[in-house]
Amino acid sequence: MAVLYGVGVGPGDPELVTVKAVRLIRESALVFVPVGERGGPSLAAGIAAPYLDPARQTIVELRYPFVRDRARQETAWEASAATIAERLGQSGQGVFLTEGDPLLYSTFVYTWAALARRHPWVRVEVVSGVTSVTAAAAVAGRALALGDERVAIVPAVPDMPGLVETLRRFDTVVLLKVSAAVEAVLNALEASGRTAEAVWVRRAGQAEQEIARDVRAVLAEGRPDYFSLIIVGGHQVGGTG
Amino acid sequence: MAVLYGVGVGPGDPELVTVKAVRLIRESALVFVPVGERGGPSLAAGIAAPYLDPARQTIVELRYPFVRDRARQETAWEASAATIAERLGQSGQGVFLTEGDPLLYSTFVYTWAALARRHPWVRVEVVSGVTSVTAAAAVAGRALALGDERVAIVPAVPDMPGLVETLRRFDTVVLLKVSAAVEAVLNALEASGRTAEAVWVRRAGQAEQEIARDVRAVLAEGRPDYFSLIIVGGHQVGGTG
Repeated sequence: MAVLYGVGVGPGDPELVTVKAVRLIRESALVFVPVGERGGPSLAAGIAAPYLDPARQTIVELRYPFVRDRARQETAWEASAATIAERLGQSGQGVFLTEGDPLLYSTFVYTWAALARRHPWVRVEVVSGVTSVTAAAAVAGRALALGDERVAIVPAVPDMPGLVETLRRFDTVVLLKVSAAVEAVLNALEASGRTAEAVWVRRAGQAEQEIARDVRAVLAEGRPDYFSLIIVGGHQVGGTG
Repeated sequence: MAVLYGVGVGPGDPELVTVKAVRLIRESALVFVPVGERGGPSLAAGIAAPYLDPARQTIVELRYPFVRDRARQETAWEASAATIAERLGQSGQGVFLTEGDPLLYSTFVYTWAALARRHPWVRVEVVSGVTSVTAAAAVAGRALALGDERVAIVPAVPDMPGLVETLRRFDTVVLLKVSAAVEAVLNALEASGRTAEAVWVRRAGQAEQEIARDVRAVLAEGRPDYFSLIIVGGHQVGGTG
């Protein structure tokens, strides 16, 4: 039987890859990596680079459109599933690398679903990874939750009518992909009175890592990129954040 | 300078420990592990066992009361911080092992705060780990969130007036420590009409791992232990859950 491992390679630091992920990457002749519509580079492949051996392994790029065009996306998911099934054949083993964890906002899931529908003879297993959420908390020196505290993880979108309510009801709110809705995020932070409790983290554990407590200034300067998030609340213990 | 690494060893499988955690555990002569008030065994030490060498390392148990008596807890946090500071001395290096991630519902944070207050010369660094939340999703074959979907992480407590509202507003709700409030959890699932969307996972990645889709039956049988959680919502892709 063919086996595909959906492997989380963590937030960016190659040392934050798990022992299991390293073993499976090294054991696999086929390494599938998600890239943009026009090709590389792949963030996940960059993180896993110390564990890859191009002389021994075939790195297969799977192209995904970064657009909100559902039909084009579905075509890409079907195409990547077909590529994986074809390359694995009846008995091959491969890894599909994703940054962070494969089950939290990852393209891998769509591919997995297409494989399950069209090529059910490919067995899929998920290997969890460290998420950017806890990695950002670590570099900011801030605990996310203690005891009975409640955490919300909310991707930013321009229209977020419930965000103020969420900020009022949850002890800690992690706002993902804040670059998508800078105005809405700033307005909701102000309306809930929690701007001062926020810390902004960009690319935790990567070379471009940045941390800032003055979220208003950071957002006003247009600095957030796709991989930046904001933690609102929690417990500041370390000095960095 | 003395250095303490707060190291997440993940949900239970020794292979889900990160490369960085393994390196720091092996480099450290002192290994601090949290245990109950009456002493061992430590779950975190059990997970890290393949990477420990009692011949070369000193394993120091730190005792924490599993009670809701704040004064007794604070005494324990201060005592463990004092023990760590004394054992590390001026220039030692140690690891403090926690299951899951050190910043998500971990005793480590209280100890870190006590160290920062009383022994600020001990430098503390956090090494993120795989959480039980994503590990449970992996063994259940269920994606937690895609695209703009919102996730809530909520520890169960007997009095949860906002839980029905949270179940209605969030795409995915992860209920932690469900053994603490079985009745309240069942009632809220029924009231929100989401009982059929739930999957129960106990000790993901450990030998005692169990998964069940009939949450009502599991809870009625009194099977949940402290390390069981319920995922409500998400996307069932794999067959296990």
